[in-house]
Amino acid sequence: MKYVVIGGDAAGMSAASRLKRREPDADVVVYERTGDVSYSACGMPYNIADKDRPIASLVVRSADAFRNAQGIDLHTGHKIEKIDKAAKKIYGKTDAGDDFESSYDKLLIATGASAIRPDVPGADLENVFVLKDLEDSRIIKGYLAENTVEKAVIVGMGYIALEMADALTARGIAVTMVKKREQLLPWMIPELSKVVRKELEAKGVELNPGFPLESVEKTSSGLVVNAGGSRFDCDMVLFAIGVKPESKLAADAGLELGAAGAVSIDKTMRTTDADIFAAGDCADALSIVSGQKVWLPLALTANRGGRLAADNMLDDEQLFNGIAGTGVFKVFDIEVARTGLSVEEAETAGFEPVYKAIVAKSKAHVFPDAAPLHASFIADRASGKILGAQMVGTEGVARRINAAAVALQAGMTLGEFYECDLAYAPPFSPVWDPLLTAASLLMKKTGK
Amino acid sequence: MKYVVIGGDAAGMSAASRLKRREPDADVVVYERTGDVSYSACGMPYNIADKDRPIASLVVRSADAFRNAQGIDLHTGHKIEKIDKAAKKIYGKTDAGDDFESSYDKLLIATGASAIRPDVPGADLENVFVLKDLEDSRIIKGYLAENTVEKAVIVGMGYIALEMADALTARGIAVTMVKKREQLLPWMIPELSKVVRKELEAKGVELNPGFPLESVEKTSSGLVVNAGGSRFDCDMVLFAIGVKPESKLAADAGLELGAAGAVSIDKTMRTTDADIFAAGDCADALSIVSGQKVWLPLALTANRGGRLAADNMLDDEQLFNGIAGTGVFKVFDIEVARTGLSVEEAETAGFEPVYKAIVAKSKAHVFPDAAPLHASFIADRASGKILGAQMVGTEGVARRINAAAVALQAGMTLGEFYECDLAYAPPFSPVWDPLLTAASLLMKKTGK
Repeated sequence: MKYVVIGGDAAGMSAASRLKRREPDADVVVYERTGDVSYSACGMPYNIADKDRPIASLVVRSADAFRNAQGIDLHTGHKIEKIDKAAKKIYGKTDAGDDFESSYDKLLIATGASAIRPDVPGADLENVFVLKDLEDSRIIKGYLAENTVEKAVIVGMGYIALEMADALTARGIAVTMVKKREQLLPWMIPELSKVVRKELEAKGVELNPGFPLESVEKTSSGLVVNAGGSRFDCDMVLFAIGVKPESKLAADAGLELGAAGAVSIDKTMRTTDADIFAAGDCADALSIVSGQKVWLPLALTANRGGRLAADNMLDDEQLFNGIAGTGVFKVFDIEVARTGLSVEEAETAGFEPVYKAIVAKSKAHVFPDAAPLHASFIADRASGKILGAQMVGTEGVARRINAAAVALQAGMTLGEFYECDLAYAPPFSPVWDPLLTAASLLMKKTGK
Repeated sequence: MKYVVIGGDAAGMSAASRLKRREPDADVVVYERTGDVSYSACGMPYNIADKDRPIASLVVRSADAFRNAQGIDLHTGHKIEKIDKAAKKIYGKTDAGDDFESSYDKLLIATGASAIRPDVPGADLENVFVLKDLEDSRIIKGYLAENTVEKAVIVGMGYIALEMADALTARGIAVTMVKKREQLLPWMIPELSKVVRKELEAKGVELNPGFPLESVEKTSSGLVVNAGGSRFDCDMVLFAIGVKPESKLAADAGLELGAAGAVSIDKTMRTTDADIFAAGDCADALSIVSGQKVWLPLALTANRGGRLAADNMLDDEQLFNGIAGTGVFKVFDIEVARTGLSVEEAETAGFEPVYKAIVAKSKAHVFPDAAPLHASFIADRASGKILGAQMVGTEGVARRINAAAVALQAGMTLGEFYECDLAYAPPFSPVWDPLLTAASLLMKKTGK
């Protein structure tokens, strides 16, 4: 059997490795558009923050290791341009400009997502960056190494934008952020997003929500970002307004697209063609909370999806039943975490969401350095079913959210969660874990 | 209605507060044997570690606050000596030696547990301590303040023993530990308890497992502990060989005792007398894993039990469905956590337990300071049902165990847990959370 994988990052290489491990004699061929495979995209902002840390430290496994140790036929600099599903062939072009083609028995599309560049004048000027691929990291880091950058404007305020605000501040750069909507993190409960705002301001980041981007201009001294009628001078610009699934190849081949324009797949990771699978940031997924299709480009989903795609390509049926949508990030001294639906997403999915933000402590009161920990569940008023949870604080947030993620997987109500025997010891928690307190207080609105 | 509570710590004061909050006109009377109410017993070793931190900082709420702000009729220094359940009366003696008595409509026994003093010669010598009550902390801390203590022997190696080894080391005291059994922490998977042993040895603690205590002697220069045929010189001795439920009062009244000699209660916290309830360290509980009665003196169980006892004393039926048995502690630089059954407990409960210890990282590999994290699930071979989990590491252990505790509450199999969407970001976790990796590897033994 010949298994072909398009895309050599998390989903693609997880699949290729598993295919080769489970069927050592199989032909496993991977075509990767860029020169990089299997790197930690999520680690890029942390790498950029530290001028002495080599970019190479982001690589999880080298292309040669995949080739030699695992026997995967891996081609970098090979861009696939067309899938002919009737003929079961793919066509592409190399970096050198040569055409190539390949047949397949089973095909996996793992083309990922790409950063959105806004369609405004000056968006393609020099010193105007995006951060999605390892190559983007090299470019940004190289630029910082060779130029004096005093001021940066970041457009957008999502995960990457905030992590990069932190990273650039660590490099001694004054950061100004601009974004379109008034709300800082629209998915966050207002009481919690206020904590993020305060932290950013305390660390000297200038926030401008409600300033839609108009254009970028080159001046004699650098760049100007025009947004919401104001001008923001700077030496560099980073667009971090989001990503979109790389699904054009699939769409052109006549495969169905699903949530947010991502490739539509079923629980076996199959597209609408029985021999073509998709996984990772280019594919959609089921929400275990709403049962509806969602598009959430998350690293664990990509790794898990690649693995499960491989199993199903080998005709060992293994189902990807869905994701909770768990995400955490660190910005300066605070940890931010969410799992499940936001209030808005819950409404859209047909629930009547209620929430109640609490402020607890990260550890027992007998520890003088116990820090405030802000938390809230989001639950359905009628059933008490947990729909999501959000937390912000300086410690104990990132790993604590996992308890809520497991509760979502189990379909628990607040009352059922409240019965959980969570860990207590003074250095780590109050006697009643903040999530238990959050569940208890929200039960006053749901009754269960 | 007149509600009487015997015991003024976690369970007793939780109950009294809730009774008064829900029924402000009720008579709520608390009799506490010692002079202290509502303090953080779990915080005592940390307090002893710091000579400058006042004992008073362990008090959660003062007796006067309970009396004045909450209107609870609270009597300290009042020891109850007899319950007459037919007459619905209790009898006691004050510290001053005066007899007193009281009637009740509903009675809560929250007498806690007491430290076991071994029955060997010299066990009651001066400078031979136990640590259970706040008064014990005062005595130990007072002793350390007024005497030069260079060497201490701790008998026992449970939570308290280890926390105190850490605390006394922090005070500059050389610590020698002796215990009866060869195994360090008998409930721990050997691969994990080795990590604890290494940490203790690295921090200079001298470990002597397999040395049964024979006697304590006073010498001209201090004390000698005789154990396993060896002599251990020291200036002070701490017995930390365990605690036992304070259930004699209940037994003398004709109430049934349950697991480990604790007061037997049902899910409504009732003893075998319909008007007498019990909660906290003196009472037993149901294991949500085995469905069997267990005795686990844990702070959250005491607080939760007190609260639920109050609800049921008010005829609002609220069930305590059971506990997972989640415990965490910190010893020097490592965090140790468990939830659910140990391998031995699982066997006793009729399961066929399997486990597989893994070593993962506390955060993504791109962080040079990622630390080893040791974890294992314990599961039933035939069903794949999760029975317990254990973890050890320098970071990310204590709060991470909660995910496993929720899984136990939900009755998940390893395969169901493996589907959970746990949090990932490079500063906090590998892409596959260590618990997911642990579940995945153990599934090779269970198949589900």
